[in-house]
Amino acid sequence: MDTFDAIYQRRAVKHYDPAHVMPEADLQKLLQAAVQSPTSFNMQNWRFVVVRDKALRKQIRAAAVDQAHVEEASILVVMTADVKAWANEPARYWRDAPAQVAELLVNWMGPFYDGKDQLQRDEAMRSCGIAGQTIMLAAKAMGYDSCPMIGFDPDRVAELIKLPDDHVIGFMIAVGKGLKPAWPKPGQLPLDDVVVHDRFA
Amino acid sequence: MDTFDAIYQRRAVKHYDPAHVMPEADLQKLLQAAVQSPTSFNMQNWRFVVVRDKALRKQIRAAAVDQAHVEEASILVVMTADVKAWANEPARYWRDAPAQVAELLVNWMGPFYDGKDQLQRDEAMRSCGIAGQTIMLAAKAMGYDSCPMIGFDPDRVAELIKLPDDHVIGFMIAVGKGLKPAWPKPGQLPLDDVVVHDRFA
Repeated sequence: MDTFDAIYQRRAVKHYDPAHVMPEADLQKLLQAAVQSPTSFNMQNWRFVVVRDKALRKQIRAAAVDQAHVEEASILVVMTADVKAWANEPARYWRDAPAQVAELLVNWMGPFYDGKDQLQRDEAMRSCGIAGQTIMLAAKAMGYDSCPMIGFDPDRVAELIKLPDDHVIGFMIAVGKGLKPAWPKPGQLPLDDVVVHDRFA
Repeated sequence: MDTFDAIYQRRAVKHYDPAHVMPEADLQKLLQAAVQSPTSFNMQNWRFVVVRDKALRKQIRAAAVDQAHVEEASILVVMTADVKAWANEPARYWRDAPAQVAELLVNWMGPFYDGKDQLQRDEAMRSCGIAGQTIMLAAKAMGYDSCPMIGFDPDRVAELIKLPDDHVIGFMIAVGKGLKPAWPKPGQLPLDDVVVHDRFA
């Protein structure tokens, strides 16, 4: 599918075929696309939690305002990130780079993040956002629909997926075979409201 | 361009043709694609600051570790967001939806965000990430290259673009005509290192 068609046709779809099982090859294709997404310092801080276990999906649904698509989509991806990825063997993120490039970047990372809790968390949210859009567009191009979600109790979901310390949840994405189209776009702002030229007035 | 080709061919390119001027139609196409990106509660909290002014680009470059592509790419987009978008006339985000849907969502937004500073900031980073990937993939599909950046002094850049109170910078994206390909992928982690099935061990 053409990139612009995927961008324009991706919508937050809420109704999915609960009987559909995503073939393993499709899941692999989706995840391999996701990890092509850029991350700061190439630290690949995302941790994609692919939930297929039906009992677990039911529990997550109960923690997510009972939204049916949490349970009925083919897969649910909890987009999480390791906020300490910058400190977690960073040399591996640059192991195939020329030695001086690798050294420069690895030595820059530590001081860049050390002690900056907000920046570390920002990085988690940014990476989850970027990779999440890759997943949603790739899904669309593969004939799936998706729904990004933040309407859930993050502490409860963290408990259910046994989220380790130093990890956070960005958001969740349901991916599956849509049964009903999304409602028409509910209120697109004019471009002038969201685009600024050079600097704010 | 096929969606998967855009996903795989998008790389962080650092060298751009400084003489290239992006046609206005291309800029509009890129921005119109960006605003197709999903946001929580459809609040469209991103504010895309498109910097073309050469003197300003030079100043931002000085605040960004002297990275040449800040100045030499065709455009620089400072991805910013209004962290108070949830409270900023929220009815407009749902004005075209059925009345009961609009009412439900608008009434949910306030309590969802009110008093939750971290959640409000997370939303800014998430939205900038999602829309940033839309811009980078759309750019690739249009024959441009891009480079996402966080290596800059955010306070100084905020000052230069006159960032309003209650706005934050997510990251910056240079978009232009690449002159040299990116280096080979520097250290891709195995899928098993970043994918978790159902729950963490």
